[in-house]
Amino acid sequence: MTPLRNDTLLRALRREPTPHVPVWLMRQAGRYLPEYAALRARAGSFMALATTPSLATEATLQPLERFALDAAILFSDILTVPDAMGLGLSFAEGEGPRFERTTDDERTIAALAVPDLARLRYVFDAVSQIKKTLAGRVPLIGFAGSPFTLACYMIEGGGSADFAKVRKMAYARPDLLDRLVAINADAVAAYLREQVTAGVDAVMLFDTWGGLLPAADYRRFSLGPMRTVLDRLPQQVPTILFTKNGGNALPSIVESGASCVGLDWTVDLRAARRAFGDRVAFQGNLDPIALLTDPATVERAARAVVRDAGPEPGFIFNLGHGIVPATPPAHVAALVDAVHAATST
Amino acid sequence: MTPLRNDTLLRALRREPTPHVPVWLMRQAGRYLPEYAALRARAGSFMALATTPSLATEATLQPLERFALDAAILFSDILTVPDAMGLGLSFAEGEGPRFERTTDDERTIAALAVPDLARLRYVFDAVSQIKKTLAGRVPLIGFAGSPFTLACYMIEGGGSADFAKVRKMAYARPDLLDRLVAINADAVAAYLREQVTAGVDAVMLFDTWGGLLPAADYRRFSLGPMRTVLDRLPQQVPTILFTKNGGNALPSIVESGASCVGLDWTVDLRAARRAFGDRVAFQGNLDPIALLTDPATVERAARAVVRDAGPEPGFIFNLGHGIVPATPPAHVAALVDAVHAATST
Repeated sequence: MTPLRNDTLLRALRREPTPHVPVWLMRQAGRYLPEYAALRARAGSFMALATTPSLATEATLQPLERFALDAAILFSDILTVPDAMGLGLSFAEGEGPRFERTTDDERTIAALAVPDLARLRYVFDAVSQIKKTLAGRVPLIGFAGSPFTLACYMIEGGGSADFAKVRKMAYARPDLLDRLVAINADAVAAYLREQVTAGVDAVMLFDTWGGLLPAADYRRFSLGPMRTVLDRLPQQVPTILFTKNGGNALPSIVESGASCVGLDWTVDLRAARRAFGDRVAFQGNLDPIALLTDPATVERAARAVVRDAGPEPGFIFNLGHGIVPATPPAHVAALVDAVHAATST
Repeated sequence: MTPLRNDTLLRALRREPTPHVPVWLMRQAGRYLPEYAALRARAGSFMALATTPSLATEATLQPLERFALDAAILFSDILTVPDAMGLGLSFAEGEGPRFERTTDDERTIAALAVPDLARLRYVFDAVSQIKKTLAGRVPLIGFAGSPFTLACYMIEGGGSADFAKVRKMAYARPDLLDRLVAINADAVAAYLREQVTAGVDAVMLFDTWGGLLPAADYRRFSLGPMRTVLDRLPQQVPTILFTKNGGNALPSIVESGASCVGLDWTVDLRAARRAFGDRVAFQGNLDPIALLTDPATVERAARAVVRDAGPEPGFIFNLGHGIVPATPPAHVAALVDAVHAATST
């Protein structure tokens, strides 16, 4: 394996000192980049792009050609796992994801099983190809959706404004939801282990919807299954756990075993670092909407986040959620450079 | 003034013992009640219903005819205040609120002023009429939107999925947003004082969108102006402050001067009561989606909230957000009765 020339991300995840604060951005490969739109058009569909390793490699590398980012993140989608379970994923243009089959009752949940990882071969092939192309430039982050977040889409059959069906199931059939997230935890653990084998340097769990749950249900249906996943990963792989709207649950999240906790933009980063900075690294948490303003405002906002994070090791700069498609790429450049300038020693 | 026959709400707001935990529900007068739909149809439009005191009185009283609720809440809308500022509010059928004019730049914000309270006379008349009709049965809660939440609608010209314009302004023109929320705070304080004069027994601030802001911005643009409002109310009036997604900011919110803090369904009620129960009362926080299940599940879920609240005085049972329109009224009856049965001494 080629040694990394820039390992600031991995050092920060281990809370070791770094020459500057590493920065990467959720959805850094995505629609705000015109070259991504061109690649997506060439691929024909999102799924074609995600399932063709050479194209996924190209998408993963695109933002690194423009910006001095300290990490690459695998170009893929969290829903590849339930797709591999046979639920029939598609993305209609301008709409969200759709499954042909929902998994929302006794029968459909009983029929569910951990997928044959051969059906996700295209992901592991993409990881190998990306690592080869990166040639040690920066680390590669692998990822998966949290068991609960996957369950949300599987139960609703796609996205939802309020995931009412899921929240109802948590009250009326907690036994079914337990079973569904347990299967997902098995599948996600196996999937991430295989990403590690293929070469990713760190892994991240995206828990987009756990923050919708009451506190006790969050621990039962979302955080618990994430702990199961983290427990099954090789000890040496650094891990990042991100629950959107998870600020409430921070005291439990820092006990999850993750090396690093991702914070959304509403969480008080200064308070989180003060309370838990000796136990976990933190990643975050600029409001992605700040990137829509102007370069001077972006730089000011980035410096404010850096100030809140403080000088102690164990901080990775990121947004508090994914880049929005209307973001001008020049503002992303201003952001990355501002973080490096403000933190270089 | 007729003395109250059931003052459990007011006692709980003052953290005094009560013979049972008082219960009322956000949006208890609303679309889930068939008699409300009929009244709304008779009125012709939502605004006609809200601006005609006799009809607003009828809407306010409807849920009390069905359920053993311990409080009435004025039937109105938070956007009556910006409407009185001349922004031209309307509600299109099946859509959200719309303003004819937005308030989103130097010129439109400079032109804004605290409205002549005579333009909100219909609200104060409704309060008097409701109090007379209640005849001491239960207390009447008055309310207003928080200065920041009103600003959200005024800037966007209506509802929004992400309030991106508002979040952009917080970064690019914080001076303008400061000015806008300051005017709103003046208007809301005057409006609530007049509701108190007209007879409401307690007041509530609805901060639906403050929880969208980064922590420091929440304190600056949302919590700060709410403190201003609370400071200007007569000392003896109990107050409830509810910020949706405000769990992160709880340590600051309990310092706001409000008698009671409303919690959404994601907040750990047990932890909140343990940490801050000696300083403020709490109100909440069942997930409104629980009401869509079945009576036995509703009762179980209600008892779990009561258990989390614990036996100490200073707790008001409510939902963690408004009742959803699909809620069967029979489930609301089961909920109210379960809370009373579980807490009667």
